[in-house]
Amino acid sequence: MENIKVLLWGFGAMGSGMAEMLLKKKGVEITGVCDMHPDRVGKSMYDVLGVDKGNRSDVIINGDIKALVSEGCVDIALLATDSFTAKAFDKIKFLLENKLNVISTAEEMSYPQAQEPELAQQLNEIARANGVTVLGTGINPGLIMDLLVVTLTGACIDVDEIEAERVNSLSPFGPAVMEEQGVGITQKEFANGVKNGTLAGHVGFNESVNMIADAIGWKLSEPVKQSMEPIVSNVYRKTKYVEVQPGNIAGCAMKGFGYVDGQEKIRMIHPQQVEPQLEGTDTGDYIRIKGTPDIHMAIKPEVPGGIGTIAMCVNMIPHVINARAGLKTMIDLPVPRAIMGDMRNLIER
Amino acid sequence: MENIKVLLWGFGAMGSGMAEMLLKKKGVEITGVCDMHPDRVGKSMYDVLGVDKGNRSDVIINGDIKALVSEGCVDIALLATDSFTAKAFDKIKFLLENKLNVISTAEEMSYPQAQEPELAQQLNEIARANGVTVLGTGINPGLIMDLLVVTLTGACIDVDEIEAERVNSLSPFGPAVMEEQGVGITQKEFANGVKNGTLAGHVGFNESVNMIADAIGWKLSEPVKQSMEPIVSNVYRKTKYVEVQPGNIAGCAMKGFGYVDGQEKIRMIHPQQVEPQLEGTDTGDYIRIKGTPDIHMAIKPEVPGGIGTIAMCVNMIPHVINARAGLKTMIDLPVPRAIMGDMRNLIER
Repeated sequence: MENIKVLLWGFGAMGSGMAEMLLKKKGVEITGVCDMHPDRVGKSMYDVLGVDKGNRSDVIINGDIKALVSEGCVDIALLATDSFTAKAFDKIKFLLENKLNVISTAEEMSYPQAQEPELAQQLNEIARANGVTVLGTGINPGLIMDLLVVTLTGACIDVDEIEAERVNSLSPFGPAVMEEQGVGITQKEFANGVKNGTLAGHVGFNESVNMIADAIGWKLSEPVKQSMEPIVSNVYRKTKYVEVQPGNIAGCAMKGFGYVDGQEKIRMIHPQQVEPQLEGTDTGDYIRIKGTPDIHMAIKPEVPGGIGTIAMCVNMIPHVINARAGLKTMIDLPVPRAIMGDMRNLIER
Repeated sequence: MENIKVLLWGFGAMGSGMAEMLLKKKGVEITGVCDMHPDRVGKSMYDVLGVDKGNRSDVIINGDIKALVSEGCVDIALLATDSFTAKAFDKIKFLLENKLNVISTAEEMSYPQAQEPELAQQLNEIARANGVTVLGTGINPGLIMDLLVVTLTGACIDVDEIEAERVNSLSPFGPAVMEEQGVGITQKEFANGVKNGTLAGHVGFNESVNMIADAIGWKLSEPVKQSMEPIVSNVYRKTKYVEVQPGNIAGCAMKGFGYVDGQEKIRMIHPQQVEPQLEGTDTGDYIRIKGTPDIHMAIKPEVPGGIGTIAMCVNMIPHVINARAGLKTMIDLPVPRAIMGDMRNLIER
């Protein structure tokens, strides 16, 4: 059987991380990379990664997706370019219309029916018309604050309330994430960013809350509510990419709430900051289900976001190739799993 | 749409617990119960449960499965009678040949390809020939020491080693479990029970280890190894069903080991005892993955075994009805989830 062929669109931290992971796996090969960044376009993928090409054919990073894609040219495309469904939509549509399966890292795409039901329906129709599948996934949304919660409710006769908390470090992340989360800015700048909507914070509560509610059969009675608070540092903090002066912003604490019959039933707590240990914050992922039975889960430290997203996207490749055509979410497919053998063995022919 | 119709075969702790759960759910009804126990046969299911029948039709417990079953008489049968595939085989075959989907609580049926590959293949063929699906599930095997492990590896680029530990209390369980685990007997009786194979202990390591290995693509290089040690009580322990004198057996500590290329890669640790808190043992479920990244998960206290098994079997009903025909395992189907809405909404027609 031929190798599974993969196209990568977007070669930033996530896309290049997926490439590194794929190069270590059996039965799969990268046949194309699209990225427009001037530091990367026109270069060999292997040179950009600093990985030995060995006897593999070279892959030159191309800025023009149309030059890379033809009908059915690969088994799957991994799209790591956007956070929002509306922004990723045309790219996904183009790939699906070329009869390519798609996995998207866009946070909203993990459950696009939450905030973009019309686009979600269109994507479902386009995918079905072309006999391929599209999935959005990542570590969160995608696993920690939604799929894992849903899985644990499987052991419950009844569920009364759900709380998911993810306390994580932003220290490994680069300038883009620092900017999105407001790390290093003053309290006044943070307040302005919240007011004028330039601080994105975490994208995913709408998706996680709706995924959980739909999975277990709760009907949300009102839109998901969110709050965003600054994490003000009392100490000096420093990472490779950012400095935080005492009194300035170390991160962003977000909460999200889902209501059923007007009652708060799903609570998301997600404080993200650089160097959390400097003020005694232990990182971790926590799920607390109040029901029959109560379930209290902790993962300490938290599953790291970057590695986790890279792994989830690559590990879902066989499930997406095997799935019936259409838009799928993590609750539609078998559970994610590491791929330690030949990826081709996982494909149902 | 009509209610989903369920037949229960076996009305002990698990079967009757599933009945209680089903009676609280929407869009589903119990249309038949088979059980041969003289205390129950011929009686109303509602009387045995102590649940008000309301305006539902009565269900009289019948000892003769043939009198209860006709082709396609229900959407699914829940079989809660056995621990071993070989013992459950004829019952499952009979149900499948009557074109009924089946969920079995038999521990070995959670991954029958592990110890009964020929029977597993036959069940797959019979199910496919009759256009129905059979699944074995429960809390463990079924979720805690296997499916949940697999799910967490989904966040891993690589996995080096896996350890799953379940430290649980046997206090809620009745005489059958006490006998299987040797609770209350002397050390000498325990040693004899191990020697002559009359102590079952936990059934499921073969299934959990093989499920994990197959899911992530590890090829086991030798059969799963198991060990069974007595948990000797230093203090007097007492439950509703058993008394343990100091120096006698409070429970059974089992370990299981999976090897890849001769190296121990999967380790299962499962000490079960009555009243563990009397000697300071904290119960809990633990998963430790060594890999990229490491993942350390804890659920404290443990997900209770009885409730968990009941919930898993009922909660998987829609997935089994929706699945393609054949023998399925938990790694083939979407994740389990609580059912808080109308069960009929979960059926794909």
